[in-house]
Amino acid sequence: MSERAPERQRWEQRMETPLAVASLAYLGGYAVRVLARGLSPDGQDLCLAITCAAWALFAVDYAVRMRLSGLGPLRFVRRHPLDTVVLVLPLLRPLRIVTAYDRVQRRRDGARLSLYARVMAYAGLSVALLGFAGALTVYHHEHGAPGATIRTFGDSVWWTCATLATVGYGDVAPVTPVGRVVAVGLMGGGLALLGAVTGSFSSWLIQRFDHGDGGRPPGGSPGAS
Amino acid sequence: MSERAPERQRWEQRMETPLAVASLAYLGGYAVRVLARGLSPDGQDLCLAITCAAWALFAVDYAVRMRLSGLGPLRFVRRHPLDTVVLVLPLLRPLRIVTAYDRVQRRRDGARLSLYARVMAYAGLSVALLGFAGALTVYHHEHGAPGATIRTFGDSVWWTCATLATVGYGDVAPVTPVGRVVAVGLMGGGLALLGAVTGSFSSWLIQRFDHGDGGRPPGGSPGAS
Amino acid sequence: MSERAPERQRWEQRMETPLAVASLAYLGGYAVRVLARGLSPDGQDLCLAITCAAWALFAVDYAVRMRLSGLGPLRFVRRHPLDTVVLVLPLLRPLRIVTAYDRVQRRRDGARLSLYARVMAYAGLSVALLGFAGALTVYHHEHGAPGATIRTFGDSVWWTCATLATVGYGDVAPVTPVGRVVAVGLMGGGLALLGAVTGSFSSWLIQRFDHGDGGRPPGGSPGAS
Amino acid sequence: MSERAPERQRWEQRMETPLAVASLAYLGGYAVRVLARGLSPDGQDLCLAITCAAWALFAVDYAVRMRLSGLGPLRFVRRHPLDTVVLVLPLLRPLRIVTAYDRVQRRRDGARLSLYARVMAYAGLSVALLGFAGALTVYHHEHGAPGATIRTFGDSVWWTCATLATVGYGDVAPVTPVGRVVAVGLMGGGLALLGAVTGSFSSWLIQRFDHGDGGRPPGGSPGAS
Repeated sequence: MSERAPERQRWEQRMETPLAVASLAYLGGYAVRVLARGLSPDGQDLCLAITCAAWALFAVDYAVRMRLSGLGPLRFVRRHPLDTVVLVLPLLRPLRIVTAYDRVQRRRDGARLSLYARVMAYAGLSVALLGFAGALTVYHHEHGAPGATIRTFGDSVWWTCATLATVGYGDVAPVTPVGRVVAVGLMGGGLALLGAVTGSFSSWLIQRFDHGDGGRPPGGSPGAS
Repeated sequence: MSERAPERQRWEQRMETPLAVASLAYLGGYAVRVLARGLSPDGQDLCLAITCAAWALFAVDYAVRMRLSGLGPLRFVRRHPLDTVVLVLPLLRPLRIVTAYDRVQRRRDGARLSLYARVMAYAGLSVALLGFAGALTVYHHEHGAPGATIRTFGDSVWWTCATLATVGYGDVAPVTPVGRVVAVGLMGGGLALLGAVTGSFSSWLIQRFDHGDGGRPPGGSPGAS
Repeated sequence: MSERAPERQRWEQRMETPLAVASLAYLGGYAVRVLARGLSPDGQDLCLAITCAAWALFAVDYAVRMRLSGLGPLRFVRRHPLDTVVLVLPLLRPLRIVTAYDRVQRRRDGARLSLYARVMAYAGLSVALLGFAGALTVYHHEHGAPGATIRTFGDSVWWTCATLATVGYGDVAPVTPVGRVVAVGLMGGGLALLGAVTGSFSSWLIQRFDHGDGGRPPGGSPGAS
Repeated sequence: MSERAPERQRWEQRMETPLAVASLAYLGGYAVRVLARGLSPDGQDLCLAITCAAWALFAVDYAVRMRLSGLGPLRFVRRHPLDTVVLVLPLLRPLRIVTAYDRVQRRRDGARLSLYARVMAYAGLSVALLGFAGALTVYHHEHGAPGATIRTFGDSVWWTCATLATVGYGDVAPVTPVGRVVAVGLMGGGLALLGAVTGSFSSWLIQRFDHGDGGRPPGGSPGAS
């Protein structure tokens, strides 16, 4: 933990907002490029430029943090696996927004949120962002493939939801290798979502029992009481 | 919690039964309108009138409670999200019956029910009511759509069960946008159901271990021993 | 609990073995009747007779226990829901074998089995028996239906496994009302199985943490160490 | 535990590396035999020889350990069920690599890994190895069957992933008896994987609550903080 120098902390604080904005710009540029079919060549170039600029910012941030950490490249890669994965597959970048959201919330006294609410908020946000990125990628690679059943972006979103809930109807399903690899990633997300829901519920029940049963219904949201 | 004035409590106690009746009337009116094909125009008008009257009662109750809370409209909406959602999507209204059922039961000394039994009862009731409302809506929007596989109400119920258990055969599946949005809601219900079943079982096991193993079989219902 | 008179206990102990035998006979008779297509009329009559005789024994046992309990019929039905369900739907009778197995095992010093092992044994046995009964019933009602995809008993077993694991491929699926009602019951069994697996694992992990980490791998069966 | 003589321990330590190598050789030989269609007859014979040699080593190890244990054959089989299963179905052999990996890691001071990380590593490794073995077997038995939907190894891997995550699209599914039996085994693996993910998450949450809430986000990997 000797790498947590004040310089690195200051850099991370200063880069928080630009990186979050760049993440959204990356996702937005990719979405427009994939979804807007009748886009003019100029518009397409603009989207590409935004996407590349955002990625360049990610790379610079990664390099600076590696520098500031005082570790060699190899050890830095080994100790920051999530950052490295996110640099290579920038569509997973939304996961970093989640971390940023947490930091912002904590500064605004959000620390009083219970652990369950936080876990649920994280699980929900991560799944929504990953699902959107996954649906985009699958649509991009599937909608023109021969024999594809995923033809519209609506189909892709529908398929993504069925996958994340581990329901898997199979009325539409990816047929291309890239689509299937993304699908396996989404299945992993679905399993993690299940684990978060079940685990939170389970520990909530156990805590209720340890501290006595106050009688509030388990389904009672703060708004219903 | 300064909004929990005695006036509001009295209002809620007085409105409990009328609201529960109105919820059932709303669901019943909608069900008859969707399912009874050979209904005379007069009968259809009656169903519509019942549905609208029930909804008007919900709106009045919402307005009165907002008034009594002494909060501004915006803050009231933010602090009572479930009530607001239920006002906009009245088919989710059954969730409020569950809360009412809890209050009635508590008055009748039902508090001695164990936490597990209550969680199971809630999960079961919520899932049954939401499943029924979901099956109705999906049938309503699917059975006439081109290329639909859900043609009868029986198909719709069968598909709803497979979705709630996260099994998802896919032999029948919704094809219209509305049907698919409802389906995503039901998938969420299925995940919550899984969480409730697993969480209850898990915490029951842990509690058994903490208080020693009395030797009762885990599958042993109170009636079987 | 005043109904737990010694007379009732003696009756239950005496009836244990006959009831278990009758349960197996019932299941066996039903299985032979459903699966053996080329059975002679005499053989079919024999199977029917065995099934009926077993059911008569169940009814007698139920009546005697109601008598011995000293409760009125209505209160007895309310306090012994599992027994009543099993009397009406004798294919669920295997669940009682599980209870009997537990009693036999306890007498043979089986109480030293850990709670996890017992939960796993119960879940496994119940699921295997219910799955077999469900596969039989579904095959019986589906294999001759028009448009059926479940044509052989092998298809039925395959479909049952996919349902119990909540995988649900949908390559074969029931199309008759009876088949679908049984399917919903099996889905419930699948959810319970998931809950048992997850809950046991979860509480095992928590217990391991509370009592320190002895270092045995989680996958280590007694035979592998 | 009187069978844990020093002689047996020394034998197990000495055989660890050869057995792990033989497991990989077995799996590799089988994979090449199944996947390499254009292999010359000599190459096929070589693969078969490697597979058989590896199996012979397994059998010798099993016999020696039975001898050293001082138990009769029957009691040895009953007390080492995993070893016996693995001897008969050598494709499950990878499970032993997992155990070996654990021993190696422990010697290298890996004991400081938290229990959660270890459970996750086991679940991941076991699922990956079993999934690979299962995909190989299913491909071997399915790709030539009439009416098969699993025609390439890619299809088989895709189907295996959908099964292990209990998603089960059903766009491709096994049709041969052997393929379906393997599928049921993989479903069991999927259930265990779900249990491991959910159970770890649940107990992590509970532990966090017992020791106070330090505020680190639940999704925060060591590299992201």
